[in-house]
Amino acid sequence: MVKQILHIVKIGGNVINNKGALTSFLKDFSELEGFKILVHGGGKRATEIASEMGLKPKMIQGRRVTDEANLEVVTMVYAGLLNKNIAAQLQQNNCNALGLSGADANCMLAHKRIVKEIDYGFAGDIDTVNYQIINVFLQNKITPVFCAITHDKKGQLLNTNADTIASEVAIAMSKFFNVELNYVFELKGVLETIEDKNSVIKDINLNKYEQLVEQGIISDGMIPKLHNCFNALKKGVQKVKIGDDSLIKGTDKLYTTLSLK
Amino acid sequence: MVKQILHIVKIGGNVINNKGALTSFLKDFSELEGFKILVHGGGKRATEIASEMGLKPKMIQGRRVTDEANLEVVTMVYAGLLNKNIAAQLQQNNCNALGLSGADANCMLAHKRIVKEIDYGFAGDIDTVNYQIINVFLQNKITPVFCAITHDKKGQLLNTNADTIASEVAIAMSKFFNVELNYVFELKGVLETIEDKNSVIKDINLNKYEQLVEQGIISDGMIPKLHNCFNALKKGVQKVKIGDDSLIKGTDKLYTTLSLK
Repeated sequence: MVKQILHIVKIGGNVINNKGALTSFLKDFSELEGFKILVHGGGKRATEIASEMGLKPKMIQGRRVTDEANLEVVTMVYAGLLNKNIAAQLQQNNCNALGLSGADANCMLAHKRIVKEIDYGFAGDIDTVNYQIINVFLQNKITPVFCAITHDKKGQLLNTNADTIASEVAIAMSKFFNVELNYVFELKGVLETIEDKNSVIKDINLNKYEQLVEQGIISDGMIPKLHNCFNALKKGVQKVKIGDDSLIKGTDKLYTTLSLK
Repeated sequence: MVKQILHIVKIGGNVINNKGALTSFLKDFSELEGFKILVHGGGKRATEIASEMGLKPKMIQGRRVTDEANLEVVTMVYAGLLNKNIAAQLQQNNCNALGLSGADANCMLAHKRIVKEIDYGFAGDIDTVNYQIINVFLQNKITPVFCAITHDKKGQLLNTNADTIASEVAIAMSKFFNVELNYVFELKGVLETIEDKNSVIKDINLNKYEQLVEQGIISDGMIPKLHNCFNALKKGVQKVKIGDDSLIKGTDKLYTTLSLK
């Protein structure tokens, strides 16, 4: 049997921080036909609310650590404020969204990150994605909308990287679907020169990726993002693209396509 | 065809505010066999967080009003913090919880309360409960867990009374099930004398209810609660009980049963 197409779209950064950009994206996403899943990151609202509550971001060796108070804030903001407002806006656009954390219907099981050099606190690394129940949702014309909160089946919620959630869900759903994974953010793709927003590298295969990292063209936050992309491709995801909102609309051909070979 | 039993349990007040009481309740709820739905109120955490964020409860003529800032807080606390922690704890107890707001899968559609004497702000009154999709969840061995947030299908989230959500969901699900609706709170039932926690009035029918209101024995917050109960009975719900945690465990026979005749 030929597998059907499933679009998995991850949004983050300024797409979430800017109300207008988010509303515009959600309209475009609603118009995507067929099976689809949305994964959203946190944006800066969590930091703002933590600050309003008198909490300071906890950093160890320059890395953000999720202590109990900050876990409470990200649970409120990601799973509550953002996830439900996104669900309500998608419903307005006749997209039958179902907001989910990993705890809901046991969709994503994780474990608290093991302490090596740094204790990241309540950070979760994903163990399993419940592809059966996600498939039940999809077959009932529901669009799952995942926030970046998982659980460990021992009653503990965990803060989890949204890029990783997107790739792990994409890998798991490849069992049933031809999955197209799209990372949507504020840039048009992976850039040759950060100053030139149109200097998009259109195609990156695994070899080229390693060269680009060596040359320092891909660095910092883009490395784990692209690592997630290639991991997804290696484990059965059909297509991975990185770009801005126009990637979903299909109006602009300027974006980065990743491939193994 | 004989309808199967569906338990709908609403928790509020001190059952939510006290961590130990909540954990204990969630264990008992997890052990309830067969189809079940949980509805939870807000508790005092929302008020605490609003206060930490420098917000004051907005009151008009002694009634609490949901302005935009307070809607943000209840969305975070009810749909995020409480709903996801409850889902995670139920998952720990092998109860396959799915946390839901009314926006999720369009489960509950409401409208912003029409302004008569008081403008309640973003308070929602329920129009329809999506019994079809809730039934899909139940048939897939999922336990829906509703927080008291609904939406209007125009992108607006709304703060909604949890007692009313419980009774409206109960009424809607009566289409498919013999519904037993249980309101669980800190008291053993409707009390004859508020000072005597064991003075439970075991049976109240519609006639007796009207007498008790007239005599001032039922007053204040108990009136809308009981109004919801009788409304549910009138519209097809089989059984309605009010009591504390032991109602779910079945260990204590002291609780209030409501009936029409």
